[in-house]
Amino acid sequence: MKANEVVSKILKEHEKITDVYFLACGGSLVDLYPGFYFVQTESSTMHTAWMTAREFVLNPPKQAGKNSLLIVCSHGGNTKESVEAANAGKAVGAAVITLTHTPGSKCDDPSMNPWIYDWADTVDEKEKPQGIVLAVLNELMKVQEPDYKLYDAINEGLEKIDGIVRAAVKKVQNRTWLFADKYYDEDFLYIMASGASYSQAYGFAICSLQEMQWMDCCYLHSGEYFHGPFEVTDEEHLYILMMSKGKNRVMDERALTFLQKYGKKYEVIDAEELGIGAIDDSCVEYFNPILFYAMTVAYRTALQDKRRHPLDMRRYMGVVEY
Amino acid sequence: MKANEVVSKILKEHEKITDVYFLACGGSLVDLYPGFYFVQTESSTMHTAWMTAREFVLNPPKQAGKNSLLIVCSHGGNTKESVEAANAGKAVGAAVITLTHTPGSKCDDPSMNPWIYDWADTVDEKEKPQGIVLAVLNELMKVQEPDYKLYDAINEGLEKIDGIVRAAVKKVQNRTWLFADKYYDEDFLYIMASGASYSQAYGFAICSLQEMQWMDCCYLHSGEYFHGPFEVTDEEHLYILMMSKGKNRVMDERALTFLQKYGKKYEVIDAEELGIGAIDDSCVEYFNPILFYAMTVAYRTALQDKRRHPLDMRRYMGVVEY
Repeated sequence: MKANEVVSKILKEHEKITDVYFLACGGSLVDLYPGFYFVQTESSTMHTAWMTAREFVLNPPKQAGKNSLLIVCSHGGNTKESVEAANAGKAVGAAVITLTHTPGSKCDDPSMNPWIYDWADTVDEKEKPQGIVLAVLNELMKVQEPDYKLYDAINEGLEKIDGIVRAAVKKVQNRTWLFADKYYDEDFLYIMASGASYSQAYGFAICSLQEMQWMDCCYLHSGEYFHGPFEVTDEEHLYILMMSKGKNRVMDERALTFLQKYGKKYEVIDAEELGIGAIDDSCVEYFNPILFYAMTVAYRTALQDKRRHPLDMRRYMGVVEY
Repeated sequence: MKANEVVSKILKEHEKITDVYFLACGGSLVDLYPGFYFVQTESSTMHTAWMTAREFVLNPPKQAGKNSLLIVCSHGGNTKESVEAANAGKAVGAAVITLTHTPGSKCDDPSMNPWIYDWADTVDEKEKPQGIVLAVLNELMKVQEPDYKLYDAINEGLEKIDGIVRAAVKKVQNRTWLFADKYYDEDFLYIMASGASYSQAYGFAICSLQEMQWMDCCYLHSGEYFHGPFEVTDEEHLYILMMSKGKNRVMDERALTFLQKYGKKYEVIDAEELGIGAIDDSCVEYFNPILFYAMTVAYRTALQDKRRHPLDMRRYMGVVEY
């Protein structure tokens, strides 16, 4: 599918979009956050909300209706809450775009404008969920907002991000091994980020570590860190700090300064040092999370190998009924 | 101040409100979440966003302007990020309401429609931040939305909630001691809730435990629990589950069923059992967090006494520069 085609189809059927709801569960919800943050910051015609899919079904926003667009992501395509949210959207007349990895799944329904994505290492970022969402929103903004200025910069970013990610993955390989060697047996850690990348602190925690490594951890917003959570900081506590490039970076830098002074065990994953600066300053915020996701994969793979805990091992998900 | 008076003043100056931004840091941000959840769910004229204050300053939403209302809360009244957010709102012509405990502080500025609240145990909930926010929004909805149906039920709820909270505090006293006795030395715990009360899982974690007890913990959404975090669950992990009454309760119940089957150490704080049902079903969702906040105070006080770690002891906040 092409982003401009799906936008054109939706605008033909719905005239205009005033509300964009980003709905999914777990890792797929993480993938939708940069799009949410983009609309919230940049749009002059659309409002937005981002929530776990079941919240939308149980407490539907009164304004969801025929000028709403639901962007729903489900990797397996049959996640009950996400399918229900897509159907709830359709029931109030909203446009729906589903992103799924799985042809033939419930999300692969023609009435939901399904976008089937591949997930392989060789696939371009603009063909994976975070990139697809940015591409779709970029087309939507171009059509709806005559004074929208980021169109070319976002498209250029979507072309450049693959090279950045590939170089960064190589660059951090040894660091991830050293991290795993040093901290594989740690009882607990905190993961911090801000801006659009707060989602990657969340995803690193709940998917990469809690789900895939059964490791206890907590995600924090690096700005909020100073309003409570920093009181636990000492030389024994382990932190991972994801530093974005962009206007939100100052919050991450403040956290780094504090950790340098009062902490001892902290790993910095710095998007700027890893080359994200090749993307235009006007929109770099929205690309940090794509790079950080690749970094979480690198770190969790190193942890898997050192801990001998397969990333795909599950004791509940897909194993027992719940 | 009275809620209807401030609403009337703001509507006179701004004609109508189309966007409500809830901006604060840490515990004050927690207090604003039920209001955010209320507007997102119930309003047909207003959109909303909830974010740590500095995000608003660094990446201001393009739509913030003269028909926006910023509700800003700062207990001490001089929180730099919150004051900056209020000023940023004023600069784009938005209406501002500041909630603060501190007369004479920067938030106590006539141009920000300051609402000075007291915090003592004897003060009614409708005069504390979570209640003030609901009261203000209730008046705003009444004026702006002719088909708004919750006005009387919310006002009744604001009258009833004090009795509910007082009875619940008595009822859980012994439980909190038993909890502290059993778990005071626990390395780590997870805290779960959903709906408007997700904020109380967040606040319990970052304020009551991380800040006030230097205890490691992580907040989780009980719906999201099944999409990653539940993989760490076993008989050794400790959970606190805050169960709401309302449409979101089914998510909390699902988490309870899972914990009963696969966990062993979990504390349930059930708003229904604690009497929240006296409030009308149509709006009970928005009152759960007020009750849960009182419960977090009860539990953290029991932990303080058992652990001999004063709730007010700080090693960084207000002690060092950062």
